[in-house]
Amino acid sequence: MAVYTEVSFEDLELFLADYELGAPLTFKGIAEGVENSNYFLQTGRGSFILTLYEKRVHSHDLPFFLGLLEHLAARGIACPLPVRSRNGAQSATLNGRPAAVLTFLNGLSLRRPEAVHCAAAGAALAALHDAGKDFSLTRPNRLGADGWRELAEFCIPLADRVEDGLDALIAAAHATLLAKWPRDLPAGVIHADLFPDNVLFMNGQVSGLIDFYFACNDAYAYDLAVMLNSWCFEADGAYNITKARSLIAAYRRERSLTDAEIEVLPVLAGGAALRFLLTRLYDWLNHDPNALVRPKDPREFAKRLRFHQKVKTAAEYGL
Amino acid sequence: MAVYTEVSFEDLELFLADYELGAPLTFKGIAEGVENSNYFLQTGRGSFILTLYEKRVHSHDLPFFLGLLEHLAARGIACPLPVRSRNGAQSATLNGRPAAVLTFLNGLSLRRPEAVHCAAAGAALAALHDAGKDFSLTRPNRLGADGWRELAEFCIPLADRVEDGLDALIAAAHATLLAKWPRDLPAGVIHADLFPDNVLFMNGQVSGLIDFYFACNDAYAYDLAVMLNSWCFEADGAYNITKARSLIAAYRRERSLTDAEIEVLPVLAGGAALRFLLTRLYDWLNHDPNALVRPKDPREFAKRLRFHQKVKTAAEYGL
Repeated sequence: MAVYTEVSFEDLELFLADYELGAPLTFKGIAEGVENSNYFLQTGRGSFILTLYEKRVHSHDLPFFLGLLEHLAARGIACPLPVRSRNGAQSATLNGRPAAVLTFLNGLSLRRPEAVHCAAAGAALAALHDAGKDFSLTRPNRLGADGWRELAEFCIPLADRVEDGLDALIAAAHATLLAKWPRDLPAGVIHADLFPDNVLFMNGQVSGLIDFYFACNDAYAYDLAVMLNSWCFEADGAYNITKARSLIAAYRRERSLTDAEIEVLPVLAGGAALRFLLTRLYDWLNHDPNALVRPKDPREFAKRLRFHQKVKTAAEYGL
Repeated sequence: MAVYTEVSFEDLELFLADYELGAPLTFKGIAEGVENSNYFLQTGRGSFILTLYEKRVHSHDLPFFLGLLEHLAARGIACPLPVRSRNGAQSATLNGRPAAVLTFLNGLSLRRPEAVHCAAAGAALAALHDAGKDFSLTRPNRLGADGWRELAEFCIPLADRVEDGLDALIAAAHATLLAKWPRDLPAGVIHADLFPDNVLFMNGQVSGLIDFYFACNDAYAYDLAVMLNSWCFEADGAYNITKARSLIAAYRRERSLTDAEIEVLPVLAGGAALRFLLTRLYDWLNHDPNALVRPKDPREFAKRLRFHQKVKTAAEYGL
């Protein structure tokens, strides 16, 4: 929720000289995106987002992220499309940062999605999985099961500062989930962060999927588990099985789940909760009070993780 | 540079039901404005800014600010126009804050305005002074000469933390300027904060004046003094007399300056520097490290104040 790198009109003019977008009419920093600096840009050619990639997005990953968006857009997925420069480059440099211009998508994300929206988003996830099948580049999931150890080792000694017993919860969940973690599920390109913030709606329909900067190759069912965590819990911590049923049923209409995927869903859901608990806790513990973002509260994912630990079979999720 | 009050899609829908603007197509928090929360809003009817007024803007001042914008827009000034609700209200309440919808202006503010831009902005200031003449509401300048004492008393004991000798500079300037402060110059509605950030340009022409939340009744020449401070100094602290000549000459083509205004310009310029030094210093000293804005460096206005203290006559400003 910040602009980390300031871009003046003069910087922008110079940058846009390499693009066939015409002169800028509007240019405003957007208070969203924890990872990057985002500007809303309008020119005679339309509306765009200019993104400057800050430290957490590595420039060597940009061909994967930007190539994926081109690939998906060409297959009918409503996602931002990188605008290539006159010389055909997908990204360039602006004020010392890698930067890209992407098409702007209309629509608004929902704070309190209802079951009908969960269904639309579940269907969009399945369509995304299908469209990504023949994408040629790959990127490992750095925040998958093999990425937890490093985060857990940093967080565990400090976790009790945030909530009593959080250290034990993490240590136990980490050990259990890693032991049970499935390694041979159907896999491909996943979004890995399809929270309600990242799905735009217009008139009740999905108008866009955004923020692909955690996209990677991993189990498709893990992506579904991320959505169960982020779309199907109420503010009071309750799991809303009606929403979950809608989401899962809509996903399965587009892509069927294998028995192995269904059986292991409680492990995947626990793993997704652990991943967001760890990254939010890490950000919370490392928060620079001078930073322009407020870290997100990690505790809601501790609550969800505890919920998943008690789940015995996927039926409890609404399958 | 922040959004202080979050507005969800659901909050927005409810709020917009009272307006004839249609359904929202885009809604993004804007990373700008130190005082308020600003959202960029697009509907089928056009582009708007939705502003939620935070603690520094008092709701009892809104009829002045919003009424002034209506008044000025009706007289051809390119400024945001408040959109009235179905029941004719200029402002409403959203998430516990006073809020208003204003038309969005295209254009970009300049980081490094050149002399030609200074001239265009100077002419726009004179047009603003002229258009505001018959506005019926009034608002005192709380940050005018009579408002300095309270700020100075808070800042002086702490000023040396920021820069050696800053306490003495403020104390001396405050005493001198207050003693010399003119009380009977031609006066009317002034912008009082027409920095380059608040002037939008398109194709080298002024396309909009924004951020009227310091507007008040005070001496016209004080507004010009604010612009000399904010448009005519280089990053290295040097006064650029070429820019100043362009700005002042363009202003005078639209509105002539009286002998009294010219004579007292060094005092007004010093006063404007002191005002921004004091408010920036106050914000710097009171900065909450958890706030989402970085305070602006007060020291550049200390430098400008020292410059003005050495000026003997208005000729040195480029008159």
